[in-house]
Amino acid sequence: MSKTMTLLWGAGSPPCWRVMIVLEEKKLQGYKHKLLSFEKGEHKSKEVLEVNPRGQLPAFKHGSNILNESVAACLYLESQFKTQGIKLIPDNPTQQALVYQRMMEGLTLTEKLNSVIYYDWSVPEEERHESAVKRNREALTTELRLWEGYLQKVAAGSYLAGSFSMADVVIFPNVAYAFRFGLSVGRYPKLAKYYSLLKDRPSIKASRPPQWMASSQGYDILKDL
Amino acid sequence: MSKTMTLLWGAGSPPCWRVMIVLEEKKLQGYKHKLLSFEKGEHKSKEVLEVNPRGQLPAFKHGSNILNESVAACLYLESQFKTQGIKLIPDNPTQQALVYQRMMEGLTLTEKLNSVIYYDWSVPEEERHESAVKRNREALTTELRLWEGYLQKVAAGSYLAGSFSMADVVIFPNVAYAFRFGLSVGRYPKLAKYYSLLKDRPSIKASRPPQWMASSQGYDILKDL
Repeated sequence: MSKTMTLLWGAGSPPCWRVMIVLEEKKLQGYKHKLLSFEKGEHKSKEVLEVNPRGQLPAFKHGSNILNESVAACLYLESQFKTQGIKLIPDNPTQQALVYQRMMEGLTLTEKLNSVIYYDWSVPEEERHESAVKRNREALTTELRLWEGYLQKVAAGSYLAGSFSMADVVIFPNVAYAFRFGLSVGRYPKLAKYYSLLKDRPSIKASRPPQWMASSQGYDILKDL
Repeated sequence: MSKTMTLLWGAGSPPCWRVMIVLEEKKLQGYKHKLLSFEKGEHKSKEVLEVNPRGQLPAFKHGSNILNESVAACLYLESQFKTQGIKLIPDNPTQQALVYQRMMEGLTLTEKLNSVIYYDWSVPEEERHESAVKRNREALTTELRLWEGYLQKVAAGSYLAGSFSMADVVIFPNVAYAFRFGLSVGRYPKLAKYYSLLKDRPSIKASRPPQWMASSQGYDILKDL
């Protein structure tokens, strides 16, 4: 089945990593994939645009079915391969509610991380303001504390919603990303513990980005949050 | 079942409307609900914060299960009431892929609409730039043309993915929103046709916002796109 799948991806992109984790968890190793360079602008290449008119990665095909939004691809793979590998969306209503809720909240975490890490990249020089940088950093701090609180409430050393689930698939790459960009282990002990718990999970280790996208802002941009 | 559900919502909020459409489609009428005012800041009230620490609407509870992200609530309701009312996520892999893909892309449409409609509301006066307004408007135009193109490809006068689905639940409120804020019927004929096709659907009519959130930028902000 995995032979009919093709993933175009970029290293260090949390959305790409999500899809790769699910492909591992669902035992779909053997899919075709191609690593493209954001720096070289390869995400805007004809090859990508033919699959994803937005010129973004991931760009994923299963046969002729196209799924370019990371959460869409993850939900599709879970649904199509429900009984293969790990079940990522529990049937139990209470657990399921928590998985869906955290999964979708994870997109806000991504957005707030990007607003700080890629500020200089996404805002033209003449439109940049110290006050905006400060506000984005405060919003990210609030967001990270919210997740620290969520982890405080779940069982010690646990996943976001009981056992490993789609919530972790979506959130873990963001957390790895935050620490990659210098987030303080001391000030976010629950997130740090969560990172440690998951980082060597086989699906995550197997799909770990071989390199991270270079940032003009350096890798310590989050250290003071 | 619907008696154990409570929805806190705001009029004219596409995310709130999505959840209300699903509740109608799944025959869950009779749920408790309370209309709150964004203008009065009621989305930041204690009542909301107890359900949704982000202080956003919708804030939805089913028993003790909390789902505040609109797509999370929609996916949960579809999963928990699979055989009740209309099936919103098809089993057919090709249709399902399209539904998930469009559903998640719909969040980008929401974001780009908000970046134009709520620019003055979200960006402090001293940080506003004509160049940013122009860029946001161009990005929204590109986004709207993408959807116009998607509708061009589906059968004439059709839904986004064959029959009415979760893709329409997520996207329709955005489309209604765009026309509410002055989008040109002439320049976006497919979106206009789509709007006409869906606006009197019983689930949509029953949940239609009784009023729209007031915008300081007026209701013609999108007329030149």
